[in-house]
Amino acid sequence: MTGSGELISDVGEFGLIARIDAALDGQEARGVHVGLGDDAAVVGASGGRVVVSTDMLVEGRHFRRDWSTGADIGARAAAQNLIDVAVMGARTTSLVVALGLPADLHVEWVTDFFAGLRAEAQEQGATIVGGDLVRSDRVVISVTAIGEMTAESPIVRSGAEPGEVIAVAGRLGWAAAGLSILSRGFRTPRALVDAHRRPEPPYADAAAASAAGATSMIDVSDGLVADLGHIARASQVAIEIDPTLIEVAEPVATAAAAFNADPMVWVLTGGEDHAVAATFPTSVELPEGFTAVGVVAEVADVELLDAPGVTVGGRVPRGSGGHDHFTG
Amino acid sequence: MTGSGELISDVGEFGLIARIDAALDGQEARGVHVGLGDDAAVVGASGGRVVVSTDMLVEGRHFRRDWSTGADIGARAAAQNLIDVAVMGARTTSLVVALGLPADLHVEWVTDFFAGLRAEAQEQGATIVGGDLVRSDRVVISVTAIGEMTAESPIVRSGAEPGEVIAVAGRLGWAAAGLSILSRGFRTPRALVDAHRRPEPPYADAAAASAAGATSMIDVSDGLVADLGHIARASQVAIEIDPTLIEVAEPVATAAAAFNADPMVWVLTGGEDHAVAATFPTSVELPEGFTAVGVVAEVADVELLDAPGVTVGGRVPRGSGGHDHFTG
Repeated sequence: MTGSGELISDVGEFGLIARIDAALDGQEARGVHVGLGDDAAVVGASGGRVVVSTDMLVEGRHFRRDWSTGADIGARAAAQNLIDVAVMGARTTSLVVALGLPADLHVEWVTDFFAGLRAEAQEQGATIVGGDLVRSDRVVISVTAIGEMTAESPIVRSGAEPGEVIAVAGRLGWAAAGLSILSRGFRTPRALVDAHRRPEPPYADAAAASAAGATSMIDVSDGLVADLGHIARASQVAIEIDPTLIEVAEPVATAAAAFNADPMVWVLTGGEDHAVAATFPTSVELPEGFTAVGVVAEVADVELLDAPGVTVGGRVPRGSGGHDHFTG
Repeated sequence: MTGSGELISDVGEFGLIARIDAALDGQEARGVHVGLGDDAAVVGASGGRVVVSTDMLVEGRHFRRDWSTGADIGARAAAQNLIDVAVMGARTTSLVVALGLPADLHVEWVTDFFAGLRAEAQEQGATIVGGDLVRSDRVVISVTAIGEMTAESPIVRSGAEPGEVIAVAGRLGWAAAGLSILSRGFRTPRALVDAHRRPEPPYADAAAASAAGATSMIDVSDGLVADLGHIARASQVAIEIDPTLIEVAEPVATAAAAFNADPMVWVLTGGEDHAVAATFPTSVELPEGFTAVGVVAEVADVELLDAPGVTVGGRVPRGSGGHDHFTG
């Protein structure tokens, strides 16, 4: 939050563009044939394939400006696309961002946003190459990531086979605990609140899983059970999570105890940490960073293919369909 | 406008996705390695380069649901990205779309939107390969187009040289006239109102200009004077429009007379027809569809490089900087 300084309406569209250009000055330009400021960007695409992911974040639903800084939100907007590309067995090379902005927003919020977006993009060596700025009542962010394949073939949701191991890398439940803390009016423990503000997706682990021969992979953004449900349905398999294999991180356990809550709810249904879940043949040694959390099994009856397909400790968890953004 | 039928909140997120999948069933899939429904799409990228453009449209600012159908708005959202890619000397192969939607919106509006998006995408042989659906108070649309180069080199804004000819293809002033008509509560003349609802960018003319050797090219979305100003600044040249070369289309002239307005204001400052302006060496025969509207000249004094750089009939037009989305 910036208490003073110029508003967007003070500097106008072209003044804002100039300040964004300054915030993005000196970016990595390898592979960028045409960058910011033309009708479209032109970037290199090695290997004859390109990976594309897009996401939208709406103020008041996905973030609050009084809970997170512009830089946090920029980093988060980048992170969720970078990891979407990474779990395909790919690496993001370029980002474009369309922003809806209120005219009475501080210019500094926008430049902070781009600083955070840029910093997170650099985690994967990606460059911000284009965008669009429009006026809207609330901040709306749409980031699209463009990437290049690093795996031979895309690692899709439909590749899991019965008998394989399910493993997870990255944090589970941290961001959900952090959001719960913020929702109750607290600002600490800082580690959990920061996990909500600025997730740390396990990019390197996703790349290692791809190299090790993961047969399917997904970014945990709806919650572990819901996202493994996507793999179960796409692969027509059952997924059996063994909750005794999941270690609840100490800060998450402590916060749950303080709130008299079940930490496994955060761990199993919390998205926004952008952990990575993948399936591996048993012949593969799990890459460092991954922990086995269950197994892939045959579906007993094809009639059940529409069911969530995920059990936890042998039971179908309640609410396992994940959060519905339109009815929830 | 659909007066009855299911709302998004009735069918939920996954019900909505199923209906969108149905609306997109049977799309062209050539070059699509991974399409809808995974963490990211994977599409072919021939020639080792990829062209990327993104735009955002906000309900109440860029469109009104009582003035345009969902299909119109979908077609427009596609069109403005398709032409952005075309003016680079490229062709869109794939689109991704992020949508913010109110829960009380009719499902049919969304499926109409995708039908319009798909129909317009087909004009360039492009496929809708991915997206994101989130909840928001108003409809917000962000489309990103991915394309492949058809020209040897990208046709950028900075390529214009003194002595060249400026030429335009496509409509000028039609959409602005149509918007003016709608704003005054009328629904006819239909040709102008439809031009606002569903622009017809000259994709083939942009491709022809590219093949003929256009040295710079731009999509007229801010208005002819403002967009030629972008070329003037990027190329460090002056652009002299000869208004006697610009023929005002009969429906535009008639509407202007009825409103006691100057049709040249619509022609010179109206965006949203997505006409194409390009510069050509005098040695090049203008491709069919293009009309010369002026010439490129030397800038008299480098001190003036920040000036708009565009004159009309020898004068700097008022308001030539174009519409500022944040102060206007």
